[in-house]
Amino acid sequence: MTEIDFHQLNDKIWASGVRRDDLVQRVANALREQIEQGIIPVGTKFMPEAELAKQLNISRPSLREAIRILAHDGHLQVRHGVGTFVSRASKPMFGSLEQMRSMTDLIRDAGGTSGHRDLQIEHIAAADKIAAELGVDEGAPLGRIRRVRLVDDRPFVYANEYLVLQHAEKDFGALSQFTGGSIYQFLRERFSRPISHSKLRVSAVAADTELAGLLQLKRGAPLLRMHELHVDANNVPMLLSINYHNTEVVEFTSMRAGMPT
Amino acid sequence: MTEIDFHQLNDKIWASGVRRDDLVQRVANALREQIEQGIIPVGTKFMPEAELAKQLNISRPSLREAIRILAHDGHLQVRHGVGTFVSRASKPMFGSLEQMRSMTDLIRDAGGTSGHRDLQIEHIAAADKIAAELGVDEGAPLGRIRRVRLVDDRPFVYANEYLVLQHAEKDFGALSQFTGGSIYQFLRERFSRPISHSKLRVSAVAADTELAGLLQLKRGAPLLRMHELHVDANNVPMLLSINYHNTEVVEFTSMRAGMPT
Repeated sequence: MTEIDFHQLNDKIWASGVRRDDLVQRVANALREQIEQGIIPVGTKFMPEAELAKQLNISRPSLREAIRILAHDGHLQVRHGVGTFVSRASKPMFGSLEQMRSMTDLIRDAGGTSGHRDLQIEHIAAADKIAAELGVDEGAPLGRIRRVRLVDDRPFVYANEYLVLQHAEKDFGALSQFTGGSIYQFLRERFSRPISHSKLRVSAVAADTELAGLLQLKRGAPLLRMHELHVDANNVPMLLSINYHNTEVVEFTSMRAGMPT
Repeated sequence: MTEIDFHQLNDKIWASGVRRDDLVQRVANALREQIEQGIIPVGTKFMPEAELAKQLNISRPSLREAIRILAHDGHLQVRHGVGTFVSRASKPMFGSLEQMRSMTDLIRDAGGTSGHRDLQIEHIAAADKIAAELGVDEGAPLGRIRRVRLVDDRPFVYANEYLVLQHAEKDFGALSQFTGGSIYQFLRERFSRPISHSKLRVSAVAADTELAGLLQLKRGAPLLRMHELHVDANNVPMLLSINYHNTEVVEFTSMRAGMPT
């Protein structure tokens, strides 16, 4: 960690009379500021805890608490048994609202590593509301894929997809080959019918206990829900996605046209 | 309230053995169902509380609690001293992410009444982040407009706008004529430079104490933040809007193009 200017950090932390109970926040703030400004570059590996605590003139428990705060923010990534690194995910990624885009590509372009957890692929019968949205009969066969997607091991979205199975057995057989990554790319490669476009609805919701657990957030944390119905070129529904995003990790952008005159 | 079928409502409420502690919810659910299905039409004025409680075979405190639940949902509007009405805002309105649209028009098209509260128009000096986004010097003159917008007296967005003042005195003079309603329409009528398009960022945030108070929600309630930079035809920033929406009242939709192949 030769890149770190301890004089500057210590000045920041110890600038004026610091109350003990402020110390952890001051350490976290000073490190965060340098990470955000790029003074401590992405990818930097921190020196061992004992040494870092000594350089910052703080106790190991205080340092540990400051690191925990920054890891929660996504500024740091703690890889157990490996070390603590300045994370690529310290600033939100930006997805597009105008065009479907593979999150896998988005993460790669941001220099991050994508992953997933808790992947479940199920053969289900369409329930009332889902059936109505997908334009199929109640009880019609659907493939359901659920997973938590990760950037640099940090959960950023709980993705929930319902795929219409035209040939229940054959299509589900194909679907069960899905191993994570981009569902768009998978469908394009394995299913002959391409997605033409989608109708998207966005809203803000509070994480319930299940969502909070999956996304490693507190219960009640605000999430961006994207409810998206994907259709083929004939406007026939194919795929319904209901995704819950942590917008501290990924925000969405759009260009918006002016008002008609 | 001759439109209301009390037999049907009472059947629903008293169908099976009802525990006292379920009663309020059952009353609220039965009324909600009939409102959502249009059986009790929008605009219906409820009869006086004592009479309605008698018709539903419940106590006045139970009825009051059920009405409070439905008013919070937006199904009912309680106008003190006037009466309780089935509200137009019982289903969310849908705004477009693709095109700026006057909320005033959106509300009118949904058959509602738009309004505002807490309108503030201020002449301020641009602070660092806002100045950087608007491409002006720190301290440059800005007009700031803040207001809570209402549909049928229910708050649905806290709108926060920063307008670049090219001629500080003259432009602010014009701006101080703003009386609520559509800022887009106002700018088009009063300022010669039309808005061409905007860059929009959406995220989910939890209401802090101030936002919760303004929007009559609980602290921590999820809100959709729309951070939108409006530019003129030369891509020069004119207006920055930072708006917080209650998506139980208004959701946003978009058509999304398929992935490029």
